[in-house]
Amino acid sequence: MSDVNGSVPAAATPVRRSRDVPMLVDRARAGDHRAVARLITLVESGDETLPAIAAALAPYAGQAQVVGLTGSPGVGKSTTTNELVRALRARGRRVGVLAIDPSSPFTGGAILGDRVRMQDHATDPGVYIRSMSSRGHLGGLSAATPQAVRVLEGAGCDVVLVETVGVGQAEVEVASLADTTLVLLAPGMGDAIQAVKAGILEIADVFVVNKADRDGADATVRDIQGMIALGERGPGEWRPQVVRAVAVRGEGVDDIAAAIDKHRGWLVEHDELRRRREARAAAEIEAIALGVLRARIGSLRDGTQLPALAAEVAAGATDPYAAANTLLTQLTR
Amino acid sequence: MSDVNGSVPAAATPVRRSRDVPMLVDRARAGDHRAVARLITLVESGDETLPAIAAALAPYAGQAQVVGLTGSPGVGKSTTTNELVRALRARGRRVGVLAIDPSSPFTGGAILGDRVRMQDHATDPGVYIRSMSSRGHLGGLSAATPQAVRVLEGAGCDVVLVETVGVGQAEVEVASLADTTLVLLAPGMGDAIQAVKAGILEIADVFVVNKADRDGADATVRDIQGMIALGERGPGEWRPQVVRAVAVRGEGVDDIAAAIDKHRGWLVEHDELRRRREARAAAEIEAIALGVLRARIGSLRDGTQLPALAAEVAAGATDPYAAANTLLTQLTR
Repeated sequence: MSDVNGSVPAAATPVRRSRDVPMLVDRARAGDHRAVARLITLVESGDETLPAIAAALAPYAGQAQVVGLTGSPGVGKSTTTNELVRALRARGRRVGVLAIDPSSPFTGGAILGDRVRMQDHATDPGVYIRSMSSRGHLGGLSAATPQAVRVLEGAGCDVVLVETVGVGQAEVEVASLADTTLVLLAPGMGDAIQAVKAGILEIADVFVVNKADRDGADATVRDIQGMIALGERGPGEWRPQVVRAVAVRGEGVDDIAAAIDKHRGWLVEHDELRRRREARAAAEIEAIALGVLRARIGSLRDGTQLPALAAEVAAGATDPYAAANTLLTQLTR
Repeated sequence: MSDVNGSVPAAATPVRRSRDVPMLVDRARAGDHRAVARLITLVESGDETLPAIAAALAPYAGQAQVVGLTGSPGVGKSTTTNELVRALRARGRRVGVLAIDPSSPFTGGAILGDRVRMQDHATDPGVYIRSMSSRGHLGGLSAATPQAVRVLEGAGCDVVLVETVGVGQAEVEVASLADTTLVLLAPGMGDAIQAVKAGILEIADVFVVNKADRDGADATVRDIQGMIALGERGPGEWRPQVVRAVAVRGEGVDDIAAAIDKHRGWLVEHDELRRRREARAAAEIEAIALGVLRARIGSLRDGTQLPALAAEVAAGATDPYAAANTLLTQLTR
């Protein structure tokens, strides 16, 4: 876990009690970067204070535009994120960045190297940057990611960028989390064809063809536009935008910011923002509920009910379905 | 799905109502192979009759010894299973075989080719053979596998062999399902070292060094015995047996059967059979309970409760943890 501005390792965090949470949230709201970092550490560690944090943050839900940014390794995600932060800051927005590393429990190696460039923003009080691990969770994104987004919303961010490597499930998951999803491609990586295969066409609101000064950029743009043209969409439906960029030189980054704004306008106009966010909240509630139930079953394992039922099943006195029903009535007390 | 004796595809199965289940179970108990095949098809398809089938089979729980048989591709699992069935029949046992194919929804190709040899037993009323797919399930084994074992127990099998390819999770899962786990190795496959890596040493009750007429067999046996000697075990704890076999010539197969019997005796003597079966029943009950809860949440999604809660969360009127709690109280009505 790296944190350019104001990192505090979990072990050093004294806040472990729910009663301390409102104070911490107040400090985060007042712009205290250390408080923001602590809150994210707490939600990331699945701390028992999670419900209290969620409750304290609830009033600020939906205040930020959540932008997902995904793409294969090497397309320039970190550089694009870095320049996009700059462009959004120039527009006066407060920006949060969550960089999800799907492969490592620690943010080291290449990712840390990339992050170093983020130090451009290290002294800017209007920018929060945080790397999060996704290891140990099913799928690509951590279960804590939606809560971390809420922390950044609560801290007053107007935009939260969630950056994930587009491998496996992560890109689909980031789309389900985001209001607007950017898919980054680069010329000559065969990405356009892969995009169709991976179902990226369905999740991308904006395609960014980065490294657009390279050979093959025109062909990549043409391929994507061809695919978009083939896609069926009803009247008023969003037509994915295609933006060229050379992020390393800052070129096209204002166009990306403009495309994000345009999509935001479309979302609001078509009541799609509300619909997406309600769907997201529903998935989040479901996941929490299932987690609670699994934990309750776990605690019953140590109690008397499950062992007794298991003994009955093993002895042939009842069957596992009947026993599961009995267990379920136990769970609900 | 292949079934050498008495296969009936699911589509042709008229039994879809729970009230028909007791009749089907009676026929299976009387030795009707078609009834056994139908019951397994029903449990495999996750049919709504599952709870009724489980209830009807409950009284016969624990009557069979469940033997797991696992190993890498090419060690001779099918041949060994085939010869083991012969040896067990010679001892007067009724035998059921579940061959789990982790890669294919259909049993075709090499597996079907292997199964053909099982036709040795096709006319023997004391042998049931069934291939099951494990695709679409988390981990290696199908959720239906424990229920299929119960069907074969109910049909009067004294021994149920569950054969899985030792890749990924399947070998660990088969051990959690079995009273006795056989791990097959072959000389010169680097298996002994892999065994340590994969944690096979912990799950194996009996090691079978198959193809023991090949070069390197002595070294493989020595390696395994060395590893067993290194393992810590308390007084009275089972020490894994090592058996040499050349299954293709039937050599050593009686020794495998004897090792299985010996392990069975140890299990009973140390009250370990009861303990293992209760742990297995507990895991089965848990899995069924979680499945039921997940289905209930799914049906709430279509009702009014979850959408309303999601709208409240999206609007900042409540938080997802509080909403999950409300949802959970709904689930329990």
